[in-house]
Amino acid sequence: MTNHALNFALTNLALMADAIGSGGGAAGSEVIADGNGDRERLARAGLSRVVEPGDLAALKAFDGMSALEIWDRLQCRSHGLERWSTRLAEVDPERDLERAAAAGARFVIPGDDEWPDPIDVLTDAGQLSRRAGAPFGLWVRGRANLRHALKRSVSVVGARACSSYGEHVAAELSAGLADSGVTVVSGGAFGIDAAAHRGALAAPGTTIAVLACGVDVSYPKRNSALLSRVAEEGLVVAELPPGCSPTKLRFLARNRLIAAATQGTVVIEAAIRSGALNTAGWAEQCGRAVLAVPGPVTSRMSAGSHLLVRERNAVLATNVADIIEAISPYGAGLTQPPRAPQSVADTLDADLQRTLDAVPVLHPAPAPRIAVTAGLDLLTTQQSLDALAALALITQTPTGWRLPSPPGGA
Amino acid sequence: MTNHALNFALTNLALMADAIGSGGGAAGSEVIADGNGDRERLARAGLSRVVEPGDLAALKAFDGMSALEIWDRLQCRSHGLERWSTRLAEVDPERDLERAAAAGARFVIPGDDEWPDPIDVLTDAGQLSRRAGAPFGLWVRGRANLRHALKRSVSVVGARACSSYGEHVAAELSAGLADSGVTVVSGGAFGIDAAAHRGALAAPGTTIAVLACGVDVSYPKRNSALLSRVAEEGLVVAELPPGCSPTKLRFLARNRLIAAATQGTVVIEAAIRSGALNTAGWAEQCGRAVLAVPGPVTSRMSAGSHLLVRERNAVLATNVADIIEAISPYGAGLTQPPRAPQSVADTLDADLQRTLDAVPVLHPAPAPRIAVTAGLDLLTTQQSLDALAALALITQTPTGWRLPSPPGGA
Repeated sequence: MTNHALNFALTNLALMADAIGSGGGAAGSEVIADGNGDRERLARAGLSRVVEPGDLAALKAFDGMSALEIWDRLQCRSHGLERWSTRLAEVDPERDLERAAAAGARFVIPGDDEWPDPIDVLTDAGQLSRRAGAPFGLWVRGRANLRHALKRSVSVVGARACSSYGEHVAAELSAGLADSGVTVVSGGAFGIDAAAHRGALAAPGTTIAVLACGVDVSYPKRNSALLSRVAEEGLVVAELPPGCSPTKLRFLARNRLIAAATQGTVVIEAAIRSGALNTAGWAEQCGRAVLAVPGPVTSRMSAGSHLLVRERNAVLATNVADIIEAISPYGAGLTQPPRAPQSVADTLDADLQRTLDAVPVLHPAPAPRIAVTAGLDLLTTQQSLDALAALALITQTPTGWRLPSPPGGA
Repeated sequence: MTNHALNFALTNLALMADAIGSGGGAAGSEVIADGNGDRERLARAGLSRVVEPGDLAALKAFDGMSALEIWDRLQCRSHGLERWSTRLAEVDPERDLERAAAAGARFVIPGDDEWPDPIDVLTDAGQLSRRAGAPFGLWVRGRANLRHALKRSVSVVGARACSSYGEHVAAELSAGLADSGVTVVSGGAFGIDAAAHRGALAAPGTTIAVLACGVDVSYPKRNSALLSRVAEEGLVVAELPPGCSPTKLRFLARNRLIAAATQGTVVIEAAIRSGALNTAGWAEQCGRAVLAVPGPVTSRMSAGSHLLVRERNAVLATNVADIIEAISPYGAGLTQPPRAPQSVADTLDADLQRTLDAVPVLHPAPAPRIAVTAGLDLLTTQQSLDALAALALITQTPTGWRLPSPPGGA
């Protein structure tokens, strides 16, 4: 049995399975619907089922062809494309579009007002390693305009099995970002992803979940309520057509979308080898900002974040301002380095400051001693000491002056 | 009353006060003891009491002079040096050396086998801002050889009011450093300093406390037991002569010594404006490694460490290896970036890996479907699935194959 024949056989089985998996019988009707004018949309919808997300072989085979050309070549079973054309028999884009519509989803393709151009960076396969390539289209649930929502956006990603610290920080930062008009993008998983969506939903902002399965598939099941809320208030997006379920390859391919679609990726708690670091790697390759939130060095969960800062020059992110600075054009939205609160001592003139600095914390010293240490004359020192005492910054004892409360040690 | 006369008057008072402060009557005897041949040591001992640590005015006034020249000029009341010569009357270096000896301390000066040359970087006043200048000598308590002890050394500094996290990390890292033959240097204060000394004392290594007061002064008092242990097992060092008590200026001057004497400064928990950041600033100016240990972004105490990494290019330190790498010559003692533990899946060949990656986490899929996703022929896929099942990496269900436990979400 030739490989080709075998492929053909197994593909028919495969697409029956797809049908089972997506819980509906394939219609098997004629694919090209000239009835509706939108041939390109149909072609891309079909290709989104025929070609696995980020399939590099496809990227090579179809290099330079338009979606319609690819589609037509597959129709006429062009030589060398069997791997994909053998899947056509059971593909029905019209039905997928109907199923999407029934699930309140639409299929967005390049050229649509909603298409987020930034992800086209993924078509530059030369620069990008395996599982690259831009999607043929995006299946989108939700009212918001995808391109607008992504204009100012950050992906917040991290461990599923995160700590309560990670969950807290993810929710806080995401709420702050949403509050500042930055869309939060994440994967809809447990842990950091869910905390990020929840945090953003709690604020008057947008959040987007990019899934590794169909937009009508609730995965993980226990997040289905959260995902419906995301779809109501924000957007649920997928590269895979309705009914598809996730595989590891699809998770990895999904990560490239999250990274490419946003201006920066913030990693909060990630194990050394994790999906979050994979997303950070994609952000790096796509020329997006990569940020990592530090945590206790005693926590395994922060090891990935610290690795990013140490080994891959990720920006250390400690608050919303740090993140906004990283995704803003130079000069815009710069972080003010944190400052200590102003204390009375900050308002002292030079003489008062020098005098204060010369007052012992341990054994009280008389004015003359302090004058010598401060390098000031006795008169100035006397006046300064009185002023400092009036400010309650020093106290007088029988044997001289000292600081009221010792700072606690050398 | 002229400024000069005033200075003279106040200085006499001052030194009476010094005597009170140091709890003993000044002998007022002739200072230069030609009887003992060590005129330079006496001169430097005297200067260590006459000149405040890091007094820039002195650094300028005495520029280019040897210690003996300075001492002699002060003896003959040379014009322009009144600020210091007026203090001579009550200075008695022989007595200070005796007091030091009585306290089990010695006075180490340049040229001594024990002198730590690295701190001579502080004489390069051009490069360094206020409060620079190398000490005239160092008062040292303890059996170890100061220069040898500092050959491979790191200062571990941080907040007095640190968190239990900071205390834990300071003790752990210091124990690890001491274990690796790196001397831990700190200030003997509460909080991080004390934890660092304790951690180092718990390991078979050396720890050094550099004080901002006399080596015979226990400050802070509640650390006196700890400081005596440090003196027994390591070294207690001070620039100030016996009996002197700390002032803020002396703390700041002390920080420059800690930074200059060690190969790197590790900051663990520091407020935005703190002695620890001051020490880090000195380390930077002296060309030493500056490292910061991250912590929870929700903790004020870690704000200073994160600031160092974000704004001042400090190295993020998460473990002992990171610190040793930073103080080691290039190529030596490099950190191995942390790796995830090897799992069975890491040992799979390419086909098994691709097959495994193509197995759904949600709806089980039959072999043909998986073959398509994996891009492998059915035969290979079948064999791979059987092998993966044997490894318990996948499970078979009536409707096909799936991962045993879903990772938890997209």
